[in-house]
Amino acid sequence: MTLHDVKAFVFDVFGTVVDWRGGVAREAAPFLQRYGAAGSQPEAFADAWRSRYVPAMRKIISGQRSFVRLDVLHRENLLDVLPEFGIDPKTVPSEALDELNLAWHRLDPWPDSITGLQRLKARHIIAPLSNGNIRLMVDLAKRAGLPWDAILGAEIAQIYKPDPQAYLRTAEALMLKPEEVCLVAAHNDDLAAARKCGLRTAFIARPYERGPGQTVDLKAESDWDVVANDMNELADAVGA
Amino acid sequence: MTLHDVKAFVFDVFGTVVDWRGGVAREAAPFLQRYGAAGSQPEAFADAWRSRYVPAMRKIISGQRSFVRLDVLHRENLLDVLPEFGIDPKTVPSEALDELNLAWHRLDPWPDSITGLQRLKARHIIAPLSNGNIRLMVDLAKRAGLPWDAILGAEIAQIYKPDPQAYLRTAEALMLKPEEVCLVAAHNDDLAAARKCGLRTAFIARPYERGPGQTVDLKAESDWDVVANDMNELADAVGA
Repeated sequence: MTLHDVKAFVFDVFGTVVDWRGGVAREAAPFLQRYGAAGSQPEAFADAWRSRYVPAMRKIISGQRSFVRLDVLHRENLLDVLPEFGIDPKTVPSEALDELNLAWHRLDPWPDSITGLQRLKARHIIAPLSNGNIRLMVDLAKRAGLPWDAILGAEIAQIYKPDPQAYLRTAEALMLKPEEVCLVAAHNDDLAAARKCGLRTAFIARPYERGPGQTVDLKAESDWDVVANDMNELADAVGA
Repeated sequence: MTLHDVKAFVFDVFGTVVDWRGGVAREAAPFLQRYGAAGSQPEAFADAWRSRYVPAMRKIISGQRSFVRLDVLHRENLLDVLPEFGIDPKTVPSEALDELNLAWHRLDPWPDSITGLQRLKARHIIAPLSNGNIRLMVDLAKRAGLPWDAILGAEIAQIYKPDPQAYLRTAEALMLKPEEVCLVAAHNDDLAAARKCGLRTAFIARPYERGPGQTVDLKAESDWDVVANDMNELADAVGA
C-alpha cells in the first residue's frame, strides 16, 4: 500500500466533494426567471459562469494580478456572464447579485462524500485544498456537514492551484512532508500538479460533474496512487 | 442582547478551552523522572515552561524576530527551562525533547468545552483564535473532539495576539466585520485587545487554570459583553 505513510488527505472540493453544477443551476433558475432570461437553461448558465473561473485565476497565478479570494472572482465573472444570457447587470439590484454569488456557498455534497470523509477522518487529518476561500469552505461545510479538521487551500496559501505553492504551503501548514499528504481530486490536471510537488494522489471519478455530456476527466489518465469510483472506495483502499 | 449580530465565536484555547497546566504536567512527570529531576513538581515545570511564552512572542510582535509558529517557540523555551530543573538539555535525546514538546498537542478540554462548543456551533461559526499553530490546533481538536468549523489564529494571521492584526485578520478571513465576531477568553488582557479592535467579548472564568494558587483572571475585570462561568453558560447567554 503506497499510502501507508500518508497522514493527511486534502481535497479538491468543487466537483470532487460537492456538485457545483447542480447547486449553481438550482439557485440560478429563479434568478434567470426573475430577470428576463426564463428561456435559458440554468445548467448552461452554471457552465458559462464556471468557464470563466480558470482564466480569472490564471491572471493571479501569472502575477498579472494580486491574490483576491474566489468570491471576488465569482462576482466579477457573474457580471461578465449575465449579458450572454440577455441580462444587463445594471438592471439587477446589487443585493440580488450578491445573493446569487452565494450559490457557491450552498452546494450539495455527492451522496458518498460525507460517509467517506467521516471514515477517512478517523485516522487521518482531512482538509480542503480548494481554490475556494475560507468563508466559502466554512459555509459549505456547515450546511452539508463536511467534517473537516481544518480549512486549508488557496486563501491560506495566498495562491491558486495549480501553482506549486498552493500544494507545498498546504503540506507545510500541516507540518508534513509532501509525500505524507495525499490530494484527492476528480481532475487529472490537479493531481498532476500535486504529484510534481511530491504529494500522493487519489483520483475519484465524477463523470457527471459537468453534466451528461462530460468529455473530460471521465477516468484516471495516469497511474495515480489510488483510483476510486467514490469516497467510500477510497476509504476502502486505504483501510479507513 | 448585545450579541445579536454576532456570526462567529472565536476562542482563546490554552486555558479557555483546554487545560494546558494539567496536560503538560501529566506528560512532564515521566520525563522529569527519567532525566534526573524526579524530585521536581511537574506542575511547577509546566508553569516555568509556560512563563517563557509571553516573552518569546513579544520578540515577534515587536518585530525583533520574524514570525515562527508556536511549536518552534515551545521547543526553544523547553531547552531554556530544563537547566532550571537540573537537567542538561544535551543529555536528553532530541527525540525525547520533540516528544515532550508535543505535550502541547495533547491537552484535555475542560469538562464543559465540548458540549458548549457543540451548542454554539449550531447557529454560529466557531473557530480557535489561538496563538497555537494550525497543526497544534488540529491535533488538539482531533484528540479531544473539539468541533471547530475552521482553524484560525496566529499562523493564519502571521502575527501573535495581542497584536491587533491577529484579531482583525481573523475577522477578515471570515469575511465578517469585527463587531460580528466575539472573542471568548478566560484572560482579561486578551479580551481588552479584542475589544480595541471592535470585536465582541465573552469572559469565561477559569479560576484554576494556573492551579489552586491562581491570582490573575479570577474574574471579569471589565464590562465584557458576556461573563460566564463556563461554556454552557455562554451558550445559554446567547440562546444557543
